[in-house]
Amino acid sequence: MSLPPIPPGRSAPEILDALKILVEPALRTAIDDLDDPRMRRITRYQMGWCDAAGNPSRPGGKAIRPALAVLSAAAAGGRLEDGVPAAVAVELVHNFSLLHDDVMDRDVERRHRPTGWVVFGEAQAILAGTAMLTAAVEVLVGDGRAGTRCLPCLLAAIQRLIAGQSQDIEMERRADVGIDDVLRMESGKTAALLACAASIGALSVGAPDDVVLGLADFGDEIGIAFQLVDDILGVVGDPAATGKSSSSDVRTGKRSAPIVRALRSNSEAGRRLDDLFADGPPEDDDAVALATRLIVEAGGVDWAAGEADARVARARRRLDGLMLADRDAATDLATVADYIVSRGRLINASST
Amino acid sequence: MSLPPIPPGRSAPEILDALKILVEPALRTAIDDLDDPRMRRITRYQMGWCDAAGNPSRPGGKAIRPALAVLSAAAAGGRLEDGVPAAVAVELVHNFSLLHDDVMDRDVERRHRPTGWVVFGEAQAILAGTAMLTAAVEVLVGDGRAGTRCLPCLLAAIQRLIAGQSQDIEMERRADVGIDDVLRMESGKTAALLACAASIGALSVGAPDDVVLGLADFGDEIGIAFQLVDDILGVVGDPAATGKSSSSDVRTGKRSAPIVRALRSNSEAGRRLDDLFADGPPEDDDAVALATRLIVEAGGVDWAAGEADARVARARRRLDGLMLADRDAATDLATVADYIVSRGRLINASST
Repeated sequence: MSLPPIPPGRSAPEILDALKILVEPALRTAIDDLDDPRMRRITRYQMGWCDAAGNPSRPGGKAIRPALAVLSAAAAGGRLEDGVPAAVAVELVHNFSLLHDDVMDRDVERRHRPTGWVVFGEAQAILAGTAMLTAAVEVLVGDGRAGTRCLPCLLAAIQRLIAGQSQDIEMERRADVGIDDVLRMESGKTAALLACAASIGALSVGAPDDVVLGLADFGDEIGIAFQLVDDILGVVGDPAATGKSSSSDVRTGKRSAPIVRALRSNSEAGRRLDDLFADGPPEDDDAVALATRLIVEAGGVDWAAGEADARVARARRRLDGLMLADRDAATDLATVADYIVSRGRLINASST
Repeated sequence: MSLPPIPPGRSAPEILDALKILVEPALRTAIDDLDDPRMRRITRYQMGWCDAAGNPSRPGGKAIRPALAVLSAAAAGGRLEDGVPAAVAVELVHNFSLLHDDVMDRDVERRHRPTGWVVFGEAQAILAGTAMLTAAVEVLVGDGRAGTRCLPCLLAAIQRLIAGQSQDIEMERRADVGIDDVLRMESGKTAALLACAASIGALSVGAPDDVVLGLADFGDEIGIAFQLVDDILGVVGDPAATGKSSSSDVRTGKRSAPIVRALRSNSEAGRRLDDLFADGPPEDDDAVALATRLIVEAGGVDWAAGEADARVARARRRLDGLMLADRDAATDLATVADYIVSRGRLINASST
């Protein structure tokens, strides 16, 4: 299929919607190709395409990663369409990781719906996640030489995802977590796949190494910024806007970046927060509200927002320094990057 | 590395030991290549190479699948060594599935040791299993064109494994399971990866389609036989010989092939078994012993043993009908196949 080129200056939601239309048919085909009916159903539910009974429902996430993948193919001089298999693979891997992480983290809600394991059981959710991961590899294997070029990038990103989640779980049991530990963990959990998404399309069209590396760096910086925004939402976000429960990370005692920054801030609020957390996660709503206020007072949220802004600025500079064949696609990449982190600025502005 | 050819007429343990020495260095390298220290440690524990504290321990399983993989490379006219990357990939996938299945099935012991999730926690075990699966694909991707030829075979086997385990879990909640359901499920859970193992080496050396398909059929039949033997061990096996608790499948009320066959046998023993299972798994040791006796009396164990023998005979005929370049390697394949199912004949003989 072929689409008209996206005119420069379009908004991020316009870009994302247009690219979702480009990628989704191939994504649906990849999932239709799963032989097992249970795996197909759980996967479709995870994608937001059907409800728990299997009936069609409104579409799911914003599909940021596939958008980055096809834009990177175009930015490197190929067509948007050339990046579709890579975009499908990246989105499948993203959803594999959501499905598995929800099992491990015992998260019960995502995008205003019960998570996969809540609906289908833990074992079936684990299996469906692994089926999606395998399908992602199958999509690239089915894409000939372009897919072969992309495979090492995708596989390395999967290993970084896994390592990041492993570190995250291990850190839950440690009292001595520093901000560097958190940023390293977030680099794996979130930045790895965004770096892959932002460069894999360029790989699929055979772009030179410096372009691929530059786009990966760009994605890596956006990825950290994106995760910092997510961390902010986990402290002060409202569930209406994000589908995440307000103060969800505070409630579970998670050591996210703003929380660790607050604990290590050497401020009165930070010390009070440390005392409050000493016996485990806050026990009731009042304690959660107090902890949330202390995190903000100790500067944890402002620091995370500032760090996210700095990362985005760095990502922009890296992108601007690349010799890209298609400047319109590069502009779209920058627009999507801004959009990702703008969620954080809005939240931060409304919380202070 | 190069090994002297295995002389014809060697016993299965001799063949397996020799081939393990050929494959294991590459298997260790694949696991050493995992970046994350937690993933490396859990994976080494799963392979039986270290204890829970990370100290080296005696070697683990018999490595049947990698042996089949390298033998299939030789049988198809290549060298044993040519099949090593494929053998490593298959063994990694096998251990991924053991690690994940133990989490899902809540199995606490394997090979006389606590299972991975018991030692490292459920989440870390899930992550390590997925890291092994990803590493398996990475090994093939790193093997150039030979690996590219093998990838679709490995990925299809993984999807069949996943579907088989999914069906297994679903069947636990159904009362109307028939023997065909069980055999279909076992085809996915066990035969898929053995079929892959028995043909992937031939794929890696570029064997013609009829040879690859014939070897896959051979592996498929052995695989069902192997699983039937495992099912028999789950009814009447002793833990000293297998590392499986005696009557373990009876205790958990699992609907394995001999148990379903007994329930569907239209015999007095079968009806008594049905009554006994009506309120769930047997509650105490006496009930387990009674249920085990009823399964044997109703002919479930004999049927499974006979079916396993028939599958092995079919596997042998399929192998004998192939034009293979190396008859010694083909003989070794047959020897290993006999060995796999001989465990079952011994058990059956001792139980009647």
